[in-house]
Amino acid sequence: MTGYFITVEGSDGSGKSTQLQNMIAYLQQRGLDVVVTREPGGTPVAEAIRALILDPSHTAMTAETEMLLYAASRAQHVAEKILPAKQAGKVVLSDRFVDSSIAYQGYGRGLGDMVAWVNDIATGGLRPDLTIFLDVPPEIGMARKQREVQHQMDRLEQEEMAFHQAVYAGYLALCKAEPERICRVDATGTAEEVFEQIQKTLDAHLGFLEKR
Amino acid sequence: MTGYFITVEGSDGSGKSTQLQNMIAYLQQRGLDVVVTREPGGTPVAEAIRALILDPSHTAMTAETEMLLYAASRAQHVAEKILPAKQAGKVVLSDRFVDSSIAYQGYGRGLGDMVAWVNDIATGGLRPDLTIFLDVPPEIGMARKQREVQHQMDRLEQEEMAFHQAVYAGYLALCKAEPERICRVDATGTAEEVFEQIQKTLDAHLGFLEKR
Repeated sequence: MTGYFITVEGSDGSGKSTQLQNMIAYLQQRGLDVVVTREPGGTPVAEAIRALILDPSHTAMTAETEMLLYAASRAQHVAEKILPAKQAGKVVLSDRFVDSSIAYQGYGRGLGDMVAWVNDIATGGLRPDLTIFLDVPPEIGMARKQREVQHQMDRLEQEEMAFHQAVYAGYLALCKAEPERICRVDATGTAEEVFEQIQKTLDAHLGFLEKR
Repeated sequence: MTGYFITVEGSDGSGKSTQLQNMIAYLQQRGLDVVVTREPGGTPVAEAIRALILDPSHTAMTAETEMLLYAASRAQHVAEKILPAKQAGKVVLSDRFVDSSIAYQGYGRGLGDMVAWVNDIATGGLRPDLTIFLDVPPEIGMARKQREVQHQMDRLEQEEMAFHQAVYAGYLALCKAEPERICRVDATGTAEEVFEQIQKTLDAHLGFLEKR
């Protein structure tokens, strides 16, 4: 038994938190030993790095520094939590992983291919067995976050929208490049509709899991 | 005028702190505008990363995490302090830089070539114009630190010695690979003797500096 590593990806406003809770409940209901974790973070050292990344006083932080800090946090997360749990035969469910760095730093901040190289070093090449990408176009995601669909965007919001569009393009490129690993779920419907799709995907993969 | 970037490297017990003070005094006496900095650190974000690396409660930190944190700190240090000062025509003097990571993480911790790759990303390819390597074989350096030459080493100290020997081998390999950049200074003599050699090297390079 070698465990199973599932990640959940999606932009702001994709309903990721809700669906993660649904997934945890469902996997536990299926009798699986689930370890839930998140990025950036998941271990004391990685959480300390997370606090440093998210500290609002660090306005001078460059995109490269941020990318390397995410990778450092991930190296610790993989070594100390994800790999040991997976090797103990557990189902590891992580809120975000490398795909987030590729989408946000590689595409969003324009750092390109270096993000994948650095993260290959950080993870030692570990890839998720299954990734659920909650697909919500950025226009809808941002409107959801602002809780108002009719809204004239100011310059900063327009810049923010361009960033989220680049992130979204990154996710779509990843889906295209790795269709077997990444399951793209239309997340524009209700929470129930979205989870119905996730459940089908989990059932397909869990069937395999339970056979082992 | 494009400034000048000098780094000082050396193992524990190489007399680096003393020689740095001597260098600062000498460069200022020559009328040069000197910016003194150190690694890991040099800016508020980089110092916060330094505190995280050196926090003794972080015993679980892996070698890869540590290496990526040093690189993150360095990316910020280069972007926020070293490059702007160099571009303003100043002489930047840094206590350690990439060579330390290659020697300590690459050779000492056995991470190998990945250290140079990650650091190329962190620095955007910036290299020192001149590096002073204070050459003290680890046996002498450790004896200096322990302030006792006759001393039976216990197991931990023997492990530590093996680590310092690997670090030293890393520095020697760098000296061999980049003899034009790295000036190897015999640092086993008195502080005065060592600085005499450093001064000659600085004079040779400063002559070029002042001609510009």
